[in-house]
Amino acid sequence: MNDLERKEFCTDLSTQPQPIIILIAPQMGENIGTATRAMLNCGLCHLRVVSPRDGWPNDRAIATSSGALELMPEVKIFDSTAEAVADCQVVYATTARARDLVKPVMSARYAALDMKSHAAAGIQTAILFGPERAGLSNDDIDYAHHLITIPLNPAFSSLNLAQAVLLLSYEWAQLKFAEGESGYALPTGKSHPAPAGEFDHFFNRLDASLITAQFYRTPELKETTTRNLRAFLQRAQPTSQEINTLHGVITALAKGTDSK
Amino acid sequence: MNDLERKEFCTDLSTQPQPIIILIAPQMGENIGTATRAMLNCGLCHLRVVSPRDGWPNDRAIATSSGALELMPEVKIFDSTAEAVADCQVVYATTARARDLVKPVMSARYAALDMKSHAAAGIQTAILFGPERAGLSNDDIDYAHHLITIPLNPAFSSLNLAQAVLLLSYEWAQLKFAEGESGYALPTGKSHPAPAGEFDHFFNRLDASLITAQFYRTPELKETTTRNLRAFLQRAQPTSQEINTLHGVITALAKGTDSK
Repeated sequence: MNDLERKEFCTDLSTQPQPIIILIAPQMGENIGTATRAMLNCGLCHLRVVSPRDGWPNDRAIATSSGALELMPEVKIFDSTAEAVADCQVVYATTARARDLVKPVMSARYAALDMKSHAAAGIQTAILFGPERAGLSNDDIDYAHHLITIPLNPAFSSLNLAQAVLLLSYEWAQLKFAEGESGYALPTGKSHPAPAGEFDHFFNRLDASLITAQFYRTPELKETTTRNLRAFLQRAQPTSQEINTLHGVITALAKGTDSK
Repeated sequence: MNDLERKEFCTDLSTQPQPIIILIAPQMGENIGTATRAMLNCGLCHLRVVSPRDGWPNDRAIATSSGALELMPEVKIFDSTAEAVADCQVVYATTARARDLVKPVMSARYAALDMKSHAAAGIQTAILFGPERAGLSNDDIDYAHHLITIPLNPAFSSLNLAQAVLLLSYEWAQLKFAEGESGYALPTGKSHPAPAGEFDHFFNRLDASLITAQFYRTPELKETTTRNLRAFLQRAQPTSQEINTLHGVITALAKGTDSK
């Protein structure tokens, strides 16, 4: 994509239903910038910030967003959490600590599915992230319908702000950009996986060359060795082009023995 | 956990089968430090670094690791990728660009499952990450059995090094620390979800109070309104303690009408 296509793609993305990310009282401009980069990496375009310590716009945020801020709609700044969530219908709060509240606690993965269902139904969701050290206050958490806690190493679970934003955004991205994909592909370029007939033809030729070269010591050993060699070569799932290369390898190597 | 328990937990984690993270020629100490924090957040303890630009140890790495480096076994430094992977049995390379190679391409999620299977079989895996700007060279990728590409916003897919390390590590953590969990819980503290009988008893009392207070205008409307009100209250999945609170609310509000 060139710059214009990139801009158009991101503008189009920003019009699609998606959760809004809300940072409450973030301290470091770097963290806001890195968070926007993580958001846009994952296709999230709408950032709201409540009372950023160093004001807005912020040069450090621009520098660390790696261009994300230019491709996203303008960041919205609010004076209070109440104003920032006022038009949001389902609100999630990220929290490392267990709270003494009867609120559903979801993993990031579960929450992404929940948000996706809401997005499909035209319901506006938002995710709250607290300030770097203290995390969300109980007053902020009052606005949340659900809590999100990410399953991590219990002896070292404190995430940097931008990394927490990344993980939530990543789970959204897996539903948005990877849906329906198995997660596995073997790209074969201009060639294609060799049909069994091509493989057979090659393997029979190799076998014949090996017999000529007296590779097999005894008839009893031959059956097992042949089968294992075949399984090994098959395991690599050769393309037709690779079968051709292997034919060339045999031709080159067998020059001395085949002609005897 | 106190500091000693934290250290013991992490030492124990480091002895469990897991992929090794290998950073090739990273430039910024910050990125190495942030990567170690992300790794340990996710329970990965073994870092190897090939030719770090600014040498090792690195003060910036220590500062940005947020204590992770102190809880992990010593980082191993190598002069070449060949030496760094020499004892690894299955190697994965993270790459944003499609390469003209017939190598399996996995998503981060799929790769984590693959690594977990290998770990269970006692097979040592490793994941290669290239330098910040250029990514992995083709010479480095020659060592990889599999490529990993993370499904992201195609118009803005370039991840910061530490964030790429985080996402791979995160997928490992979901298999390690979240396995068997549904991702949803409703913690009810000392109380518990109210049994249907308690809820019925409360609702019948509310209904009787509403009849007394002449809330229901017509008998035809009553059936639907009662059913909807019941569904609303049930949807919140009240605990026994909350049912008690609601009894108190009815008692307080109905003082004027019930006594008439």
